[in-house]
Amino acid sequence: MKDNRFKIAPSILSADFARLGAEVEDVIKAGADWIHFDVMDNHYVPNLTFGPMVCKAIRPWTKAPIDVHLMVEPVDSLIEPFAKAGADYITFHPEASRHVDRTLSLIRENGCKAGLVLNPATSLDWLTYEMDKIDMVLLMSVNPGFGGQSFIPETLHKLQECRWILDQYEKKTGKKILLEVDGGVKIDNIAEIAAAGAEVFVAGSAVFSGKNYEGYKKIINNFRKELDGV
Amino acid sequence: MKDNRFKIAPSILSADFARLGAEVEDVIKAGADWIHFDVMDNHYVPNLTFGPMVCKAIRPWTKAPIDVHLMVEPVDSLIEPFAKAGADYITFHPEASRHVDRTLSLIRENGCKAGLVLNPATSLDWLTYEMDKIDMVLLMSVNPGFGGQSFIPETLHKLQECRWILDQYEKKTGKKILLEVDGGVKIDNIAEIAAAGAEVFVAGSAVFSGKNYEGYKKIINNFRKELDGV
Amino acid sequence: MKDNRFKIAPSILSADFARLGAEVEDVIKAGADWIHFDVMDNHYVPNLTFGPMVCKAIRPWTKAPIDVHLMVEPVDSLIEPFAKAGADYITFHPEASRHVDRTLSLIRENGCKAGLVLNPATSLDWLTYEMDKIDMVLLMSVNPGFGGQSFIPETLHKLQECRWILDQYEKKTGKKILLEVDGGVKIDNIAEIAAAGAEVFVAGSAVFSGKNYEGYKKIINNFRKELDGV
Amino acid sequence: MKDNRFKIAPSILSADFARLGAEVEDVIKAGADWIHFDVMDNHYVPNLTFGPMVCKAIRPWTKAPIDVHLMVEPVDSLIEPFAKAGADYITFHPEASRHVDRTLSLIRENGCKAGLVLNPATSLDWLTYEMDKIDMVLLMSVNPGFGGQSFIPETLHKLQECRWILDQYEKKTGKKILLEVDGGVKIDNIAEIAAAGAEVFVAGSAVFSGKNYEGYKKIINNFRKELDGV
Amino acid sequence: MKDNRFKIAPSILSADFARLGAEVEDVIKAGADWIHFDVMDNHYVPNLTFGPMVCKAIRPWTKAPIDVHLMVEPVDSLIEPFAKAGADYITFHPEASRHVDRTLSLIRENGCKAGLVLNPATSLDWLTYEMDKIDMVLLMSVNPGFGGQSFIPETLHKLQECRWILDQYEKKTGKKILLEVDGGVKIDNIAEIAAAGAEVFVAGSAVFSGKNYEGYKKIINNFRKELDGV
Amino acid sequence: MKDNRFKIAPSILSADFARLGAEVEDVIKAGADWIHFDVMDNHYVPNLTFGPMVCKAIRPWTKAPIDVHLMVEPVDSLIEPFAKAGADYITFHPEASRHVDRTLSLIRENGCKAGLVLNPATSLDWLTYEMDKIDMVLLMSVNPGFGGQSFIPETLHKLQECRWILDQYEKKTGKKILLEVDGGVKIDNIAEIAAAGAEVFVAGSAVFSGKNYEGYKKIINNFRKELDGV
Repeated sequence: MKDNRFKIAPSILSADFARLGAEVEDVIKAGADWIHFDVMDNHYVPNLTFGPMVCKAIRPWTKAPIDVHLMVEPVDSLIEPFAKAGADYITFHPEASRHVDRTLSLIRENGCKAGLVLNPATSLDWLTYEMDKIDMVLLMSVNPGFGGQSFIPETLHKLQECRWILDQYEKKTGKKILLEVDGGVKIDNIAEIAAAGAEVFVAGSAVFSGKNYEGYKKIINNFRKELDGV
Repeated sequence: MKDNRFKIAPSILSADFARLGAEVEDVIKAGADWIHFDVMDNHYVPNLTFGPMVCKAIRPWTKAPIDVHLMVEPVDSLIEPFAKAGADYITFHPEASRHVDRTLSLIRENGCKAGLVLNPATSLDWLTYEMDKIDMVLLMSVNPGFGGQSFIPETLHKLQECRWILDQYEKKTGKKILLEVDGGVKIDNIAEIAAAGAEVFVAGSAVFSGKNYEGYKKIINNFRKELDGV
Repeated sequence: MKDNRFKIAPSILSADFARLGAEVEDVIKAGADWIHFDVMDNHYVPNLTFGPMVCKAIRPWTKAPIDVHLMVEPVDSLIEPFAKAGADYITFHPEASRHVDRTLSLIRENGCKAGLVLNPATSLDWLTYEMDKIDMVLLMSVNPGFGGQSFIPETLHKLQECRWILDQYEKKTGKKILLEVDGGVKIDNIAEIAAAGAEVFVAGSAVFSGKNYEGYKKIINNFRKELDGV
Repeated sequence: MKDNRFKIAPSILSADFARLGAEVEDVIKAGADWIHFDVMDNHYVPNLTFGPMVCKAIRPWTKAPIDVHLMVEPVDSLIEPFAKAGADYITFHPEASRHVDRTLSLIRENGCKAGLVLNPATSLDWLTYEMDKIDMVLLMSVNPGFGGQSFIPETLHKLQECRWILDQYEKKTGKKILLEVDGGVKIDNIAEIAAAGAEVFVAGSAVFSGKNYEGYKKIINNFRKELDGV
Repeated sequence: MKDNRFKIAPSILSADFARLGAEVEDVIKAGADWIHFDVMDNHYVPNLTFGPMVCKAIRPWTKAPIDVHLMVEPVDSLIEPFAKAGADYITFHPEASRHVDRTLSLIRENGCKAGLVLNPATSLDWLTYEMDKIDMVLLMSVNPGFGGQSFIPETLHKLQECRWILDQYEKKTGKKILLEVDGGVKIDNIAEIAAAGAEVFVAGSAVFSGKNYEGYKKIINNFRKELDGV
Repeated sequence: MKDNRFKIAPSILSADFARLGAEVEDVIKAGADWIHFDVMDNHYVPNLTFGPMVCKAIRPWTKAPIDVHLMVEPVDSLIEPFAKAGADYITFHPEASRHVDRTLSLIRENGCKAGLVLNPATSLDWLTYEMDKIDMVLLMSVNPGFGGQSFIPETLHKLQECRWILDQYEKKTGKKILLEVDGGVKIDNIAEIAAAGAEVFVAGSAVFSGKNYEGYKKIINNFRKELDGV
């Protein structure tokens, strides 16, 4: 049975793009909660991945939430296309938008849940005046857009700080804001990361290294076991 | 039997991204010659499509040439990734590179054939001093990156002019440079376009509206019949 | 009699540009304290309004302070032109200048009072090391450059925090820094906004909806009455 | 009686911005044919003037065509706002748009006449493939956005070349394209400029130095007399 | 005998570029500890100085650490060239890199010590999550890239705050991070600046106004005497 | 005795930057005519070299003309600094300036001779309307800013075409415009390049590989001998 508190969000960046629909279907059937969708434009990050049309193509293959992470600059012009393509969550980097409050509002006006993504060095101060417009905070535990990195240990303290801010806000207002983490999440650190306060776990190669439905299932089950112990 | 002179290059922009491998396989089996790969970065054009990793994923599904059209700015940093991902042709817009001669050389040093893409208003003068480094010229017959446009009639004269330039160069040097056209190519104008001098025909929705292998085959056959009469 | 503590600064963005001199004259005669001048360059914000020459043209029509809000990027090249055009205050967004301390100094060297404008999501931390070079802080209570927005409630807390910082600084140094607010200020919230700490109130359509001198006078008087109760 | 062939288009850049409506009314009553509207964004040129809202404000004051010259980069986002603000002609610099054909189409789809503006050093080649989408060509006879320049003599040859191109096109297709000139047009050179092929004459300080209706009338009459002799 | 705690780092920006090798040799022989190397690219700051090739040329003339201050944007592409040119320290401005953590890692992977430079208005918050990747913090006490400025007094408080942060971190982790200051350091304020917490002192004209080896020696000795009293 | 028609302009990019004054002195004494000064800003080209202060430092070491080649974007802000630093010629790339005519005028107003530099793929059309403001044309025979390239053979035809244009203009107006070439000029091709029409020859490593005054002299003499035969 799935744990309701924790969400596993495989990043399709590590899936087989030649059969993306089937990959999405398999990984969700194997027990994943969300699909994480990494958008890179070769400007905000030095890599180009895929845009709204690819999101639209996978939308019919699952009912699970699609969680779009925009590593793009500027941000605003891509929001409506992704909302129309079926995104459930849209998150962006505050440094990439001159009008952060406006961009958050725009995401919500387009019917999606909105979030901010904070790079490893970026301050939590970006949250201060926008808590009422944020549904999720994504803390990067590697640098977005670069390959072959491992989990930055300093993220554990940042998760704890952020957890405390979100908990205080929930106590005061009753509003729940999700805390997501992306980068270097593996079987041997997921429990520690969850203990520091994360609730949504992006995992790319860690999941898709399973190669097929059976493999995905086994890996996701192992993640769940680790999370059960938190 | 395939006509050797003319190449049909379906643009996978109109394929089903959820099963791209199968789409590529089907359309080539149905008689297409090349796969045309439209790369947009939301900067040179107002749209974001896909990058090198998607190219790499479809590479194993066909032996047909993959023809990468870079609608990106800047250009140079994407050349090596696409060459490694299996591209055969790489074309770019001269306005998007400060050092056009250098970019052409870079494509060739990476083992690919190189080409320039000229927007509808862009002068053929860009070819003058680079004929020895160009393997193909792509004339846009719509504006790249915008949907729902039809073939710009002025392109016919431009094709004739370009044809003349390429023929003169071939006579003088023996070197053959291909002439490609992209935008609004349909069954009812392909013969006229070929007569004006085009040899490689990009077609997106015109082909993929066929929906499956049988449909693709029928459409491509119709294209061939039109081309046989040129 | 005018209240000396609170300043009403109608934004000429809502005036009739075909007769700007008369509008400026009327609104000041009707009781306004300052003229607020919104400069947009279609880069920092997605709109283009007017530059130094328009400021210069209205300068002879009033002795009231002209308060120039630069929604432009980059900032520095416009400072001297606006100073020469008769601006009294020049404020800018810290994100739009790579050298915030330098830009503040440049405004002062040109004989104007200097201020920082903080977007809804922007941290008050920008003030920390620049208090000695700031004459005014402008807190945005809507996103600059976009139409049809209402007052962002979160601004009330931010005004209180900022008020506290400015008061502490005044106690320590004797230097008074003004606190201005811009966006969605109306008759039914101006008292609450003043109570939170604002002293200068930008109002555009709220004032110019009065249509003529008599209308402006009535509206401004109503604002004054609300402010008298604070 | 007005000469039908030649159009005098005073640039409101030299008018009194404090009473723009009256200025527009006066200068048209004084015999001008068009209102020329210079839009600068402090990016394409080092100056900021005014945007669509100012255009909208003067629209009710005259029925004469408003001729909007966009010295902005990028171009496309300002087209719809100016069309809605009542512009009749919209011209732009081809270097400022990555998709010149697209921008010309966009202007026409918005119900305006479209034109290209060529800087002193810019080649006439930009016209080659766009003649069917161009209603006017504006040749700059000074550098746009910089003050205090005089008419660049080399423009006379360029006008003659452009005249010849436009005449050839008209003979072939029956379509008339206007030829406009902007910069340093004075009483002592307007006849020579007209003889070289110009039909629409932008004049700023040359007209508005007249100071009022009577002055404008006298100057415009003098221009007409010169033009009558061409 | 040299004081081990304090480092004097003459900026070669004030040296004679026609004989840079000799200047470097002389100033180190005269008692300086480091060579400070100011890199400006005319984009992050409005001035252009010199790049990696000049660094490489002076490397053989001294064994003292070369401390490269990058006033450039973007940052990453210059790191490897400077590392290869013999830089010991490389510092950069966090606003100039979209991926601050990545840039710090890149410097270290290239075998150099890494630091962040904070402009006068920039928050110390940039340090929070990067303490483990930082070897030095450089606080600007003037605005980089502009001439003729004097020491900004507010820097003294900022130095104290930063000192406290670094000391706390050292107590907790045992790791020492250097605190450098750049701008307006003179004989009459160096003691006060050292007392506020600085350990490395950049001085340009203050040192090179000595004109030759004897002069440099005298000035550096005077600096030492002041520092001895701290 | 020096040949008056041909000028040899060693690029100090290949000199020893640690003793630049002496290098300049030596190479001129060894028979060079001009000093070529390559300015790169890491934006127009992917490399950073040096700016106006270095030019100023070498100015007292020679009376030979200093020929500044700006590989920077934007251009205008660096013109006055280089003029003040003692530049005789300033050349720039037309693609790097939005207002080419203005930039040429600015160079001349600052008392320098002005030129355009054309990249290998760039059209000679840039010259058409600016012949009266140009003192020199520089044709690139390699791509600027990249190392290790050899002379692009296509440049020979371009030199011939440009020679013809300049000769025609001289016949018509009496005004002489110099033709310079930069990139891959060696002892074994300089005669052929001169025969194609070049008059000023930039040479970097080809000259400075001589290592010292004697070496430079020998190489330059060899160049002269080749040129004598043209």
